[in-house]
Amino acid sequence: MQVIERWGVFEAALHGKTEGNPFTDYEISGTFTSSKETVRVTGFYDGDDIYKVRFMPSFTGEYRYEISGSFSDEVFTGEFTACEASGNNHGPVRVANTYHFAYEDGTPYYSVGTTCYVWDLQPEEVHQKTLEELRKGYFNKMRFCVFPKHYIHNFRDPISFPFEGTPMDSSWLNEENFQTDIDLSDNDWDFTRLNPEHFRNVERCIVELMELGIEADLIVMHPYDRWGFSHMDRAADDLYWKYVLARFSCFRNIWWSLANEYDLLCDKTLEDWEHYADLILTYDPYHHLRSIHNCHAFYDFTRPWITHCSMQRQDLYRHVEYTNDYRIRYGKPVVWDELAYEGDIDQGWGNITGEELIRRFWEGSLRGGYCGHGETYTVPDDILWWSHGGELHGESPARIRFLHGILCQTPGIGLKEVPGEFDELVSVAELAPAEDYRIYYYGFGRPSFRKFSMPEGISYKVEVIDTWDMTVTDAGIHTGTFRIPLPAKQYMAIRLTRV
Amino acid sequence: MQVIERWGVFEAALHGKTEGNPFTDYEISGTFTSSKETVRVTGFYDGDDIYKVRFMPSFTGEYRYEISGSFSDEVFTGEFTACEASGNNHGPVRVANTYHFAYEDGTPYYSVGTTCYVWDLQPEEVHQKTLEELRKGYFNKMRFCVFPKHYIHNFRDPISFPFEGTPMDSSWLNEENFQTDIDLSDNDWDFTRLNPEHFRNVERCIVELMELGIEADLIVMHPYDRWGFSHMDRAADDLYWKYVLARFSCFRNIWWSLANEYDLLCDKTLEDWEHYADLILTYDPYHHLRSIHNCHAFYDFTRPWITHCSMQRQDLYRHVEYTNDYRIRYGKPVVWDELAYEGDIDQGWGNITGEELIRRFWEGSLRGGYCGHGETYTVPDDILWWSHGGELHGESPARIRFLHGILCQTPGIGLKEVPGEFDELVSVAELAPAEDYRIYYYGFGRPSFRKFSMPEGISYKVEVIDTWDMTVTDAGIHTGTFRIPLPAKQYMAIRLTRV
Repeated sequence: MQVIERWGVFEAALHGKTEGNPFTDYEISGTFTSSKETVRVTGFYDGDDIYKVRFMPSFTGEYRYEISGSFSDEVFTGEFTACEASGNNHGPVRVANTYHFAYEDGTPYYSVGTTCYVWDLQPEEVHQKTLEELRKGYFNKMRFCVFPKHYIHNFRDPISFPFEGTPMDSSWLNEENFQTDIDLSDNDWDFTRLNPEHFRNVERCIVELMELGIEADLIVMHPYDRWGFSHMDRAADDLYWKYVLARFSCFRNIWWSLANEYDLLCDKTLEDWEHYADLILTYDPYHHLRSIHNCHAFYDFTRPWITHCSMQRQDLYRHVEYTNDYRIRYGKPVVWDELAYEGDIDQGWGNITGEELIRRFWEGSLRGGYCGHGETYTVPDDILWWSHGGELHGESPARIRFLHGILCQTPGIGLKEVPGEFDELVSVAELAPAEDYRIYYYGFGRPSFRKFSMPEGISYKVEVIDTWDMTVTDAGIHTGTFRIPLPAKQYMAIRLTRV
Repeated sequence: MQVIERWGVFEAALHGKTEGNPFTDYEISGTFTSSKETVRVTGFYDGDDIYKVRFMPSFTGEYRYEISGSFSDEVFTGEFTACEASGNNHGPVRVANTYHFAYEDGTPYYSVGTTCYVWDLQPEEVHQKTLEELRKGYFNKMRFCVFPKHYIHNFRDPISFPFEGTPMDSSWLNEENFQTDIDLSDNDWDFTRLNPEHFRNVERCIVELMELGIEADLIVMHPYDRWGFSHMDRAADDLYWKYVLARFSCFRNIWWSLANEYDLLCDKTLEDWEHYADLILTYDPYHHLRSIHNCHAFYDFTRPWITHCSMQRQDLYRHVEYTNDYRIRYGKPVVWDELAYEGDIDQGWGNITGEELIRRFWEGSLRGGYCGHGETYTVPDDILWWSHGGELHGESPARIRFLHGILCQTPGIGLKEVPGEFDELVSVAELAPAEDYRIYYYGFGRPSFRKFSMPEGISYKVEVIDTWDMTVTDAGIHTGTFRIPLPAKQYMAIRLTRV
């Protein structure tokens, strides 16, 4: 009998009918049953007469399945075994305790994300370079899109399109005309016929990320469009959404991002977004994480279907520093998916220093939120990590990996901010007594020492953390009132661990 | 006949009675009359049987005076001539047009301040070093105190005290005990007898600053005290205030700061502050600028006696960026007297980088506010500019002087913020058409170019300003839509001047 890992993917590929339009004229679904769960999933047409049903077992044990639908006159049944997970397979990420995440097996998940919007639609050479960078373990979440991207640095066509048809000519596009001179009717799509090859390109990336232990924060809609994919009607949207859900829900590392910058999709109303959310709730039986990302105004993150806040900064100067406010306001994990990117392009969202990016990561993470990276250095071949992947050029990735290592040392799951002096950020473990584990962060301040007055009778191991040079230096065991020398540099932290 | 410059100081020194207490038992006042003004001023006892009356003529021409009071049975009269001002004498600084300052002769005054709280009470060697730095022209306003300062780095006694008596022993003070173990009764002061030598020390500094073209923003009260000067009763406060006003009002460069961090003076009520303000209004006939500086909460800057907002940042991350908000709220000039100091001490108010200090100066100044410097580097002899003066060690002073040069090139008087893109600060001349003169500032952003779409038909001289390297580079004449390359560094600005 076939053996699948718990949280792995079982797939049935079946020949079926092809008369008419297989994407719209037939359905396929499966019911998977073990002693612990019964799950009904919808399948999809993968081209070449093949229909597929996929399933992710949430438990170990024997599974039976029955697959049927108008795609075939037959009913298909079978069995497989779900064995224990292995390696870096810890199951899907869940909200663990209001503000933090853990994998389904209980392992804490400290999100350190990055964004490569359309790395899934780049030539193979770029794709391989991206994988090479990702293997270095800088990040454990990646935001990327199903649809291709139209924007500065994104005038080349993607390697595939999501629908059958012909795209507009893009050879005349440049920075001056790309926002004003687009005529969507220069594209010719059949919005009733999806292109399976395109979704296989996306899927390949999801699986590669899964193998690397990286969550795939999949952006299903977005406004940066010259093809009309952001202006489809309800029928086309629904066909697309259901296809995405039927095809990708089985992957344990999927997170659903309804949109990047939903508020720039001028055709779509709040009712539309709530409708897409309903589709996810209906067609994703695994309850993957769900959010929606803003440009200007946050979506109402109190909506019950939203599992976590996917935030873009709303002010140039103060943003991740509001993490605690948003935790209180929304009662959900706060994920800063856009806090400006390391780079040097003309626009402010993509030209901060590595130092400032890392400061923001520490500010957001120590306050019990989660931060995301991006890189937008001007490079000769116009391959920017933020959109295409490729090579990393910046100083922040290694520091993000270092921060992740520190976060993973938190007792229990997750950090939170507690009141401190005006000039320090004090972070403690969410689930441990506040006096047991404390990180003091000084950001752009350069103290040459700091004084502490801790409760008498508690001894602390004191460490000086250089968040930029990535060192943790033992500063001895201290108790009561003590003074810790510092090198008068920016971006230093002091950690106190009760011993 | 004696000749005094307009806005210079006329002084009459007269022998008078000394029985009893000359500070409390006698008065002296003078009336000064020219064809343009009649001014009554109060005098003061300067020790050694000498009473003095001082006067600042606000006009040129012939002045007659009559001095009398209980200090003497005689009435003294005389004449002098006020001639035109010369050199850097432009008269007192006034509020010129709601948000900005100009000297009384109409010359715009762009405030770039510094703070040396008790430089007036330091040994001669330190004093001379301070003057040497001030002669370099970095600053045109200095905040300093009449009372000595008690705080970290301030345990040595001042060179003089404001009252007759004996101070507490200070040899045992250190960073651990200085805030908790002070017994004010270890001091022995006669609060009815001022010490003229002390006020001569302060006065010397006022005059030295005046000669250097630097405004003396005199802090009359403050909370950092081990001698009881912040806990005097109403009678002692009044005697002190009236003495300060009688003695120093004559100096054209005086600004009155009722207090540094008024909200830390725990004995004083709002009624007290309003009373001190009344004393200034009564005893300063020249209407020098008046404000009061906060630690936590701003004083109500809408009070009619307050001429400008003397602000300390209320948030660690966003402060000078609120300048335009405060201009709107208070309708007065916004002066950021504390926005954190360049240095490396333990506390966040005194350990930011020169870069960050200069960024704050540009942010505040381009928004039509004014900023103040301070320096708190840990140095072996514990002489910190912020409190003592002495030598400057930082990178910011030269950049502040450079900024001042740019500010002085503003058409008319003063800058203001106008709406721009999210990632830029756009500043225009307050009194010129917004399209005539524009500075775009990018702060911590590092754009490698910026695009402009200006009204057709207007040609601009374009300059790239490196606010850190202090260069202004000609980028040619441009019109309409154009693109200006930048070096992808932080702290750059682009200036457009209509030609």
